[in-house]
Amino acid sequence: APRKAPPIEKRLPCSLEELYKGTTKKMKISREIADASGKTMQVEEILTIEIKPGWKKGTKITFPEKGNEQGNITPADLVFIIDEKPHSTFTRDGNDLIVTQRITLAEALTGYTVRLTTLDGRSLTIPINNVISPDYEEVVPREGMPVPKDPSKKGNLRIKFNVKFPTRLTAEQKAGIKKCLPA
Amino acid sequence: APRKAPPIEKRLPCSLEELYKGTTKKMKISREIADASGKTMQVEEILTIEIKPGWKKGTKITFPEKGNEQGNITPADLVFIIDEKPHSTFTRDGNDLIVTQRITLAEALTGYTVRLTTLDGRSLTIPINNVISPDYEEVVPREGMPVPKDPSKKGNLRIKFNVKFPTRLTAEQKAGIKKCLPA
Repeated sequence: APRKAPPIEKRLPCSLEELYKGTTKKMKISREIADASGKTMQVEEILTIEIKPGWKKGTKITFPEKGNEQGNITPADLVFIIDEKPHSTFTRDGNDLIVTQRITLAEALTGYTVRLTTLDGRSLTIPINNVISPDYEEVVPREGMPVPKDPSKKGNLRIKFNVKFPTRLTAEQKAGIKKCLPA
Repeated sequence: APRKAPPIEKRLPCSLEELYKGTTKKMKISREIADASGKTMQVEEILTIEIKPGWKKGTKITFPEKGNEQGNITPADLVFIIDEKPHSTFTRDGNDLIVTQRITLAEALTGYTVRLTTLDGRSLTIPINNVISPDYEEVVPREGMPVPKDPSKKGNLRIKFNVKFPTRLTAEQKAGIKKCLPA
């Protein structure tokens, strides 16, 4: 078998929105090809990559033998590796999405409504009437990432809370709290 | 050089109190010794181990050649390895001691006094007037473990808090909280 050049790997950064909805990326590559006489010339080529909904970081897309042509060695495969750009609101845990909401202690105790924009641009309104302790997690089914093998299925959205305590309370505030909270 | 048997290692479990104060442990061992003719007999021996204040898990104490005597091979070294028994109140982090107090949200907000018995039996009373958020840590200098190289020095005692939120609040309690806590 003829020798083959080792694969060329390139990162392909995608936003979480792109991985949620799926998208098509066109990548312009530049490579050397050789004619029958062995003379090489530089050519540009456009490769089309179809990102499927739910693809994960680390997914590899291989274009066989798209490296430079040189002498009697088989050109390298060109491999794109999906990378996930950080998102301002969501982080990803497998097929789940995680969001952390910063709320005050008063909101944690008296009720809070989570308002979010999903990765496909819908508005979500999730009223929470439970007491929100610092380890409370609200799970919203089917609002996570699509499952690659069946994009009609989706992971969960998990809402976590960072409960901000007041830094200082007056004697009057403390007296009031003693009246309304169980000892 | 004569061959030597590989060392025999034994765990030596110590309580945190023993490692704090230091102690002397007497270990009865049973071994075979050989007389000039090569005849072996079983003997018992008491080894004294002086545990120094502040010793850590993994500290090794070696008694050279206290293994069985057999033929023309040098007896094994006997090695005791300090292990730390779990303690009901304290855990250890290097020279620091860590204790976690379970308190109510009302206590976290209106003031709480930590009462502890130290590893050498003294009573500690530490009033806390700050608001205790779930990640609050009260550091008490010099109430940790002794530093082995200089037992007059000690690590810190770090007090952490597990703040228990109420599971449910009435509409009246919520109204009261809204009045006394900042939104």
